[in-house]
Amino acid sequence: MPDSSAQSTTADLAKRFRAGQVAALARAISIAEDQRPGFEELLHELLTAGPTASRVGMTGPPGAGKSSLVAHVAHAYRAQEERVGIVAVDPTSPFSGGALLGDRIRMNDLATDAGIFIRSMATRGSLGGLAATTKEVLDLVDAFGFERVLVETVGVGQTELEITAAADTVVVVLVPESGDAVQAMKAGLMEIADIFVVNKADRPGAPRLAKEIRQALHLRAGHGVQEPSGHHGVDLTQVARDARPTSTPAVDSEGWDIPVLETNALDGTGVEALVEALGRHRAWLDSSGELDARRRDRARGRVRDVVEREMRRAAWSSMKLQAALDEGVDRIATGAATPYSVARELLAQLLR
Amino acid sequence: MPDSSAQSTTADLAKRFRAGQVAALARAISIAEDQRPGFEELLHELLTAGPTASRVGMTGPPGAGKSSLVAHVAHAYRAQEERVGIVAVDPTSPFSGGALLGDRIRMNDLATDAGIFIRSMATRGSLGGLAATTKEVLDLVDAFGFERVLVETVGVGQTELEITAAADTVVVVLVPESGDAVQAMKAGLMEIADIFVVNKADRPGAPRLAKEIRQALHLRAGHGVQEPSGHHGVDLTQVARDARPTSTPAVDSEGWDIPVLETNALDGTGVEALVEALGRHRAWLDSSGELDARRRDRARGRVRDVVEREMRRAAWSSMKLQAALDEGVDRIATGAATPYSVARELLAQLLR
Repeated sequence: MPDSSAQSTTADLAKRFRAGQVAALARAISIAEDQRPGFEELLHELLTAGPTASRVGMTGPPGAGKSSLVAHVAHAYRAQEERVGIVAVDPTSPFSGGALLGDRIRMNDLATDAGIFIRSMATRGSLGGLAATTKEVLDLVDAFGFERVLVETVGVGQTELEITAAADTVVVVLVPESGDAVQAMKAGLMEIADIFVVNKADRPGAPRLAKEIRQALHLRAGHGVQEPSGHHGVDLTQVARDARPTSTPAVDSEGWDIPVLETNALDGTGVEALVEALGRHRAWLDSSGELDARRRDRARGRVRDVVEREMRRAAWSSMKLQAALDEGVDRIATGAATPYSVARELLAQLLR
Repeated sequence: MPDSSAQSTTADLAKRFRAGQVAALARAISIAEDQRPGFEELLHELLTAGPTASRVGMTGPPGAGKSSLVAHVAHAYRAQEERVGIVAVDPTSPFSGGALLGDRIRMNDLATDAGIFIRSMATRGSLGGLAATTKEVLDLVDAFGFERVLVETVGVGQTELEITAAADTVVVVLVPESGDAVQAMKAGLMEIADIFVVNKADRPGAPRLAKEIRQALHLRAGHGVQEPSGHHGVDLTQVARDARPTSTPAVDSEGWDIPVLETNALDGTGVEALVEALGRHRAWLDSSGELDARRRDRARGRVRDVVEREMRRAAWSSMKLQAALDEGVDRIATGAATPYSVARELLAQLLR
């Protein structure tokens, strides 16, 4: 397809995007992912209206059943005639290709529904960083007009936590096999969860895990306990068990009572309660002013991302700086310099 | 402890570091992690000699038994009178605190050995990005004089893959439960692995997984197959199964034959073969010139990291830019701007 001029293409694409053509959404996403020339102008053009969708992020370890829950929740929204966009950033997710047969069937069911859009992100090699790119894709899916946007990540890495924080409501999905509440705390999941789900609730260990999470949440909310430290041998569940019984509800600093739900994604047990909790959280976000606060935080983060990306691009597109880098690497290899002394030289050159 | 002057402290610390005082290593690591004033000068001072250790990175999904394998390999090196530094970047690792009883015992065994140093990284909230900080910690442990440096990460996130690439030799540990070779390819593990380990080799599915990985490696090496795409429904193992039988060994582009080993970290089966493979890979790195190439690549990446970190710090420490950011976020909230238009304004201000 010949591009007569980037500008006319952008205007045409924006027009088709606003007319609700799914192909235009898919193309806009590809342009953002590949950071093709003019992609930031396109994003500016398409995102002027700002976010309107209700965004739910689901994270948790591989095999926790996130995809199945996402599929269940998507079905529930579809039953309410709402349109749903799904973004999967999880190499083990059936949305991104690897699937058990049962999941694959559920996915196909979703994939043939015109009210559902599914996009999986490449989990490596994205030019501007996976987190930044995924946030842009979420914004595009939101701007396209889906009432609900669901994003699924594997929540053990920093990148994945960052992506999940681009949702309005963060659901952390755990299973008995994924360890105890201490590990969830250590992985930073307590700080980002608006709703906890213990999936595979029929398995032994599920009630205990749910109880541990509730205790850890109570402890954090009621007793001002500090973040778990990295020290060896500190058993926070033991600390929780030793704490005196309290009737204080597990309420986060802004007044939301974090529910700990039990589900079974295989037969759909508990999904209704999850959808209900998602609705309550959304209502709380709206009424408390927290939604505005979160959107402002996200906007601030986005501006910083874009500025830093452009700074990097501007710096490394300089042939002179690249030559100085090459020469510096030679000196590091012979022991005549360190990365820090070379960086200092390059920074001096940048500021000149 | 009063710091009379940052400079004298740095000189003193460097002296104690070079004298082999473990407390000085621990303190240097803390300074790097917290990015205290002068940390880059300290790193420059301590890293002038360049890397000398043999660095092994182990990655894989949670529960694959990486920590146990790391412990086994560490014991094997200790038996050869080599000193071992271990860095754990994995919230589920016993090295970083969450442990099964058996693992904890093995760890304690290691922890009381003066020839072993164990450091776990906080997996969130690190100032300069977890990957950049972890690489600096690895350099410090290397510079301190350990013959072997082992780093353990959970290999599903981009940050974790980046850290693992800071090792000379990358071991990818999989278990039958962690899925098939297709998922490993999708997660980018095929590209970074120098050695594959199928752990829990006594479980059903282990031989099949090992076979699938070998087939995928053969396919990639022998037939010039492209990277797996994100398309739904592409079954690469099926492609592998359909490929004609070949006697071409699975050799990566630089001439290393990637072994696929089977181990049982519980009873130590296969650990000897793993240690032997690590030795062979190291010898190949040396003789092929690949070690120099990898170290040069790492030095280049490090310079870029440090330059970008300093650019970010310089930009956002400007009160004027912060004020413009605040004002821009207000306009985004009212729909009068997008993150892209505000970023453009801030960049113009930065360049002025």
